[in-house]
Amino acid sequence: MQPTPQVGYKERAMQAEIIAVGSELLTPYRQDTNSLFLTDRLNRLGIEVIRKTIVGDDRKQIAGAFAEALRRAELVISIGGLGPTEDDQTREAAAEVLGRRLRRDEAVLREIQERFRRYGRKMAPVNERQAMVPEGAEPLPNPNGTAPGLWIETDGRLVVLLPGPPRELMPMFLEHVEPRLRERAGDVLLLTRELRVAGMAESDVEQRIAPIYTRYEGVQTTLLASPGEIQIHLRAWTRDPEHANKTLDELTDRLAVALGTHLFTTRGESLEEVVARLLNTHGATLALAESITGGLIAQRLTSIPGSSSYLVGGIVCYSNEVKTAWVGVPAELIRQKGAVSAEVALALAQQIRERSGATLGLGITGIAGPGGGTAEKPVGTVFVALADGRRTIERNAHFPGDRERIRWQAAQLALDLIRHYFQFPTGQP
Amino acid sequence: MQPTPQVGYKERAMQAEIIAVGSELLTPYRQDTNSLFLTDRLNRLGIEVIRKTIVGDDRKQIAGAFAEALRRAELVISIGGLGPTEDDQTREAAAEVLGRRLRRDEAVLREIQERFRRYGRKMAPVNERQAMVPEGAEPLPNPNGTAPGLWIETDGRLVVLLPGPPRELMPMFLEHVEPRLRERAGDVLLLTRELRVAGMAESDVEQRIAPIYTRYEGVQTTLLASPGEIQIHLRAWTRDPEHANKTLDELTDRLAVALGTHLFTTRGESLEEVVARLLNTHGATLALAESITGGLIAQRLTSIPGSSSYLVGGIVCYSNEVKTAWVGVPAELIRQKGAVSAEVALALAQQIRERSGATLGLGITGIAGPGGGTAEKPVGTVFVALADGRRTIERNAHFPGDRERIRWQAAQLALDLIRHYFQFPTGQP
Repeated sequence: MQPTPQVGYKERAMQAEIIAVGSELLTPYRQDTNSLFLTDRLNRLGIEVIRKTIVGDDRKQIAGAFAEALRRAELVISIGGLGPTEDDQTREAAAEVLGRRLRRDEAVLREIQERFRRYGRKMAPVNERQAMVPEGAEPLPNPNGTAPGLWIETDGRLVVLLPGPPRELMPMFLEHVEPRLRERAGDVLLLTRELRVAGMAESDVEQRIAPIYTRYEGVQTTLLASPGEIQIHLRAWTRDPEHANKTLDELTDRLAVALGTHLFTTRGESLEEVVARLLNTHGATLALAESITGGLIAQRLTSIPGSSSYLVGGIVCYSNEVKTAWVGVPAELIRQKGAVSAEVALALAQQIRERSGATLGLGITGIAGPGGGTAEKPVGTVFVALADGRRTIERNAHFPGDRERIRWQAAQLALDLIRHYFQFPTGQP
Repeated sequence: MQPTPQVGYKERAMQAEIIAVGSELLTPYRQDTNSLFLTDRLNRLGIEVIRKTIVGDDRKQIAGAFAEALRRAELVISIGGLGPTEDDQTREAAAEVLGRRLRRDEAVLREIQERFRRYGRKMAPVNERQAMVPEGAEPLPNPNGTAPGLWIETDGRLVVLLPGPPRELMPMFLEHVEPRLRERAGDVLLLTRELRVAGMAESDVEQRIAPIYTRYEGVQTTLLASPGEIQIHLRAWTRDPEHANKTLDELTDRLAVALGTHLFTTRGESLEEVVARLLNTHGATLALAESITGGLIAQRLTSIPGSSSYLVGGIVCYSNEVKTAWVGVPAELIRQKGAVSAEVALALAQQIRERSGATLGLGITGIAGPGGGTAEKPVGTVFVALADGRRTIERNAHFPGDRERIRWQAAQLALDLIRHYFQFPTGQP
């Protein structure tokens, strides 16, 4: 049983392929990321990306990729290979596949020369190659570099050549490509929602929500897992935004019920953004005493503009001496219970709160590894506590993974504890 | 003029293509990252990756990608699409392209059933699909999931089907694919070096080193820029490792001379690793007073195992009150010079050192934005100081970019100042 009619939710204006050109993109060190930006912008126009191809700086390979893509897609966008050197072969490959000659475009050449003049540099003869334009192609201005883009129409298909550097590609696409594509794409819209969940495994999230979202066939649902967090992306293409918005809202509501207190946003916010908003809304301030996370919680909270309004300060108290001297945890307590214990987390929270005058104090301690674990307290053990002067709440966990992963999950646990404090003040933490 | 003979440095054992399968990889949210791992491992065997293709969960698209790849490469590796649901079509697409029938492999089926039994779960009928194996294919065991991999030999070409989840793909590749490929690949080796530079723009690095590395044609040189850091990757494939190592060492030495004091590693270390090593080597300890970076420097230094041996502690002193109360910067100084000033950075460094008893104190202050900038001190202004009780060194900078980028560059500047303190004790900071 479908809860609502699905017809029309998978409408697409056009299908596109992206070809990323560059031998460095075939090494273990570098990855094409421009295609994520392009996919996002294309999707918003109702254009679906059906394939991405990554090839090296080799004219035959590039030409082959163009030829294949043009057999499948109405729109082919290439990224990179428009530079001045012999390595850069995208222009030549596209011209070859489309059966067009390259001619020197005097206006483009003047622009390149002008650019060099402006920066007081002499134009090398190789840069003349960048003024070569396939017959019938339209150059797209590049205010941030010497390589113009190219817009080519051919047998009802579109070929767009964009430069590789993001600061050249992005403005060129937004200013010169997107408006033209919008005209052709018509009135298909992409509507999205993003839910995020803390403290659940991906498989648990999937088990809870799959019975719901699979009934909404017109909505594309993607789960994305990172340590301590699962993102749920909902997308619907439509020509009837009112109806699609209603469906997305309904699906969001049902997923929210299924996810319960684990859900921390339906608007794609980060956990630190949510915590920052809650602190601001409640006029509360926070002080941190971080052992295992070593400044990560402070760094995440201060990554948000305006964080000085709620973050009084933080102490990174790695050593027992600093826990005692700077935060005020009794040395005797550390000796008795161990630095990694619920009692020390609690003392950190209470003491940092008192010393700072903040509304809330948060203390966290644990073992990030690789060394330092014991049978009783293995690597990955974390204790976190929050104190407000009247009551305290605590959590502990045992996280898998390496040092970085453990520390990130510990920070998630701490931030999520603050969220629970505000959102479920009377419930279990 | 070539400084050394280059012959034999571009030897390859084999050419490979990677096909990543999954509709989620064609959204703006997700990216294939398995191919970076595979490329690294393949390159080490002397196998070059000549193309990467990303297709959705569509049998026709997957089959097309296989057919095209097999026309070009001796080795085709697919990632993903081996799950139990109707979405998973890689097995079927490969069988179709290779003209082989799928038959149920009873041994594989028993393993899947056994796995479900072990976890006390009932096997759904759909999981039987995962026991379907193309004729003549060899299943590759998957201890971390239900989907076996597949190894298929066909007309002198190799097709390998791997599952998508990294924790299934990686061990399967290392245990069952790599040893077989090594046998075929023969004795071609990949030798690498990685240099890293702080405090230089990519174009400046390129200008200094291009005249050198371009003369080493057999060495593949890739520059990778991130905020405040440039990585220079050198790679050479060879059957003569002794000679290639000599060449790589020679090139590394020449690049090191050209890069001067900006070079912080020739072994691919992170800046925090280098700083940690220097602190340990000199038996020095460090205390931090962070304003603009908000805990980022502490977080980076504590990301390294054993950081408690040199990091005494840190204070995140966002507000002026905390700068005064916790660190001991005179309120009068902040009033006179402003919180973002060389004087306050210096006071933070000196005071945190005294209060902590550390060998070195580091203080940093600045404006990360987006608000808070003035004509005199615009967003991106940073002051950092290091004190050792005898002398102090300072730096200031004006960084471009958004809040995150500015904070990261500020942390780089601070870490690099500590490095300079140890490596160039008498020179300019």
